[in-house]
Amino acid sequence: MKHLLSTRDLDRDTAIGLLDVAEDMAEVNAREIKKLPTLRGRTVVNLFYENSTRTRTSFEVAAKRLSADVINFTAKGSSVAKGESLKDTAQTLTAIGADGVVVRHSASGAAQQLAQTDWIDAAVVNAGDGTHEHPTQALLDAFTIRRRLHGDASRGRPLDGVRVLIVGDIDHSRVARSDLWLLTTLGAHVAFAGPPTLMPFDIALWPVEVHDDFDEAIDAGFDVVIMLRIQLERMHDAFFPTREEYTRLWGLGEQRLGRLGQRTLVMHPGPMNRGLEISSAAADSPQATVREQVANGVSVRMAVLYSLLGPEGGLA
Amino acid sequence: MKHLLSTRDLDRDTAIGLLDVAEDMAEVNAREIKKLPTLRGRTVVNLFYENSTRTRTSFEVAAKRLSADVINFTAKGSSVAKGESLKDTAQTLTAIGADGVVVRHSASGAAQQLAQTDWIDAAVVNAGDGTHEHPTQALLDAFTIRRRLHGDASRGRPLDGVRVLIVGDIDHSRVARSDLWLLTTLGAHVAFAGPPTLMPFDIALWPVEVHDDFDEAIDAGFDVVIMLRIQLERMHDAFFPTREEYTRLWGLGEQRLGRLGQRTLVMHPGPMNRGLEISSAAADSPQATVREQVANGVSVRMAVLYSLLGPEGGLA
Amino acid sequence: MKHLLSTRDLDRDTAIGLLDVAEDMAEVNAREIKKLPTLRGRTVVNLFYENSTRTRTSFEVAAKRLSADVINFTAKGSSVAKGESLKDTAQTLTAIGADGVVVRHSASGAAQQLAQTDWIDAAVVNAGDGTHEHPTQALLDAFTIRRRLHGDASRGRPLDGVRVLIVGDIDHSRVARSDLWLLTTLGAHVAFAGPPTLMPFDIALWPVEVHDDFDEAIDAGFDVVIMLRIQLERMHDAFFPTREEYTRLWGLGEQRLGRLGQRTLVMHPGPMNRGLEISSAAADSPQATVREQVANGVSVRMAVLYSLLGPEGGLA
Repeated sequence: MKHLLSTRDLDRDTAIGLLDVAEDMAEVNAREIKKLPTLRGRTVVNLFYENSTRTRTSFEVAAKRLSADVINFTAKGSSVAKGESLKDTAQTLTAIGADGVVVRHSASGAAQQLAQTDWIDAAVVNAGDGTHEHPTQALLDAFTIRRRLHGDASRGRPLDGVRVLIVGDIDHSRVARSDLWLLTTLGAHVAFAGPPTLMPFDIALWPVEVHDDFDEAIDAGFDVVIMLRIQLERMHDAFFPTREEYTRLWGLGEQRLGRLGQRTLVMHPGPMNRGLEISSAAADSPQATVREQVANGVSVRMAVLYSLLGPEGGLA
Repeated sequence: MKHLLSTRDLDRDTAIGLLDVAEDMAEVNAREIKKLPTLRGRTVVNLFYENSTRTRTSFEVAAKRLSADVINFTAKGSSVAKGESLKDTAQTLTAIGADGVVVRHSASGAAQQLAQTDWIDAAVVNAGDGTHEHPTQALLDAFTIRRRLHGDASRGRPLDGVRVLIVGDIDHSRVARSDLWLLTTLGAHVAFAGPPTLMPFDIALWPVEVHDDFDEAIDAGFDVVIMLRIQLERMHDAFFPTREEYTRLWGLGEQRLGRLGQRTLVMHPGPMNRGLEISSAAADSPQATVREQVANGVSVRMAVLYSLLGPEGGLA
Repeated sequence: MKHLLSTRDLDRDTAIGLLDVAEDMAEVNAREIKKLPTLRGRTVVNLFYENSTRTRTSFEVAAKRLSADVINFTAKGSSVAKGESLKDTAQTLTAIGADGVVVRHSASGAAQQLAQTDWIDAAVVNAGDGTHEHPTQALLDAFTIRRRLHGDASRGRPLDGVRVLIVGDIDHSRVARSDLWLLTTLGAHVAFAGPPTLMPFDIALWPVEVHDDFDEAIDAGFDVVIMLRIQLERMHDAFFPTREEYTRLWGLGEQRLGRLGQRTLVMHPGPMNRGLEISSAAADSPQATVREQVANGVSVRMAVLYSLLGPEGGLA
């Protein structure tokens, strides 16, 4: 694996292998001295064309735990919109000796474009590109589900037969897409639920079960429910006159939480709009995994950076 | 000590102990290689909801001297104003494995709220919360006074009987409050001087001597004068028609400097408005401690981080 | 050498010495583990009053490769414009224990002012001050030319007899000035070409050959052509009605590239306006050195930081 650009092209063995390395990293993170010398002398650049303090911080912590040097390269949006400029930035990063580039960009496909071999030597990690993909989010979701289901016996296991429902603004969500591909590859059954106005227009062509009613979807029975963040302006695009209306139809409140049953995991990529798409009762319930997802995000990103930049042959 | 949230609840022995550790750190800072391995593998997050390059930099230098990894997490003001969001941020920082969180926030009490045990595992250091407290500033002020008075014989000593006058916009000053509590605990006698319109409305209930005339205060005799920064918009709140008027009544110019005597220390938390609350003659005089305060700030912050995050039992 | 403020006052031996240390650093950068322990325990502050992600990043990578701690201190433009404030900032940086300060400022002479001995203890590196100088850019240009001409036999050599043409907005270019002084000191012959409205008004007094026609300059024969970035608003100051007009008269397109000959180096300090002052054909041609310049920038900045802050007596 030279880059991590999407989960769509990740095969099952590689995916399980990454989750297993993340298990090793979670052990490192449980230690008193949470530091490995593996990437000493390597330079990781966080190239963020969109603000995302949470994701940037998670990658920064991951890289530093592996002893890499981290450079935050925050780009101004306007002057770098053109393909040419992204090429020159890529060549600049190669020239300064970047070993890894973590890129967040508002344009779908930006990471793929950056990774073209005549542009860059460094390993490219997609940290979210437009509405396309966010592969480390999908990996941390898969890791979180596997750990909850199998605990210490997680290593080597896929997610065969696990039923996952993803709820909300599917159309604008790179998380929904990355989750769909990865979880399906790992053997899970994935379904989407959301208002028809927030579904991709070609959703009928996607290999996914679709629900347009949250309660009916719950009746279908799922092991995991992933609630997506709704952005206020998008709520109005979707013809919801008020927040209350959205919450009534698509929020995970106390009543729906009760109907899910206590063994159904409740996940959210964060940051949450408490009281909008998720109630505090749901977010703070024992079946919620929000905090574990953040912690697992560091382990998964360490695994990705280690797999792309580290020496071959296991942990140092 | 699990957190450092205020000086009001700091007991005398703990305060003197922190100042003594800061003496050890000042020795490290005088070395050629200003670096200790003590906090290697620890992560310190600078969580700044208000801009403060100076304070953030001081903490960043302090943490790096102790070999900690430092993450700058600059929050946008608006979306995090609500208590809920601060809680989620706290849980995110815990989840990514932060060992220490240095927080600056415009709301009084934010650090205390963040430190609630069900929110966060990390040690919380208050780097300024609204008009409430700024404890490391008070510690560096106490350290600076002690060093000027006792030099190499400072270790173990309080500030019994030292007379300190704090001058300016008391009402909006967390420095004035933190200094008052800490210096009093250490045995000093503290007085405030400032325009009545810039005094807390309930100042009569505070355990502090108050002057409404700078010159009369000087006549009362002080060993230390701490000049506070005045913000221009606050000067007008206080009914001063012009800068000149404020400077005439409340500035430390040449004439007042002469009346103080050469043994009276002149302190300022910075950044100074030269020519407004303090003249350049005063700021650059031998009795001024402004630069020492900045240098001591690094030693004091190292001592705080070391005491909260380091191994027990002295310097490594 | 205590500071690096300009190339105008750099003597020939010191300049060649810096380029030779940069050769050593280029060898470090070619290693698997691109890290030297030389500046461990030293603190380098990037004090940037103007945005420049590229230059800041290059210095940050260089300092981290030498194991220094790096603090990014981004100043807001307005409040620090006054000389007094720059003085206080300098004293603050000294007080926190900065060993080196890399400064970028919009005012010509800012680095020199900062370096005044009663202001600061740290070594000051000018990373660009107004239209005055940008010495590390000139050093990396000289280094790039020397390497292209002499390869592995570069050490110890000057640039005697090399003919260099600098093209574009000379008036606003600190790069043109720094290049002129350094390359001349190293024995090169330097000429300027550009629209008369973008030449310094006193250009007749400068020790430099001046061309007001790009094609005539090319006929004069040069080994190196350095294309400067044109800023759109400046193009209009120079009475060019359109981009096309500027490109026709002062751009390096395919036709001029052909007339230069394949052995003439094409340089650009970046970021390039492809299609404006330089065509993609020229920028991506084998004779173009744009990427090498960026890579060499890291080596040169490591050499500068090492020479100013490292132990005496060669590489550790």
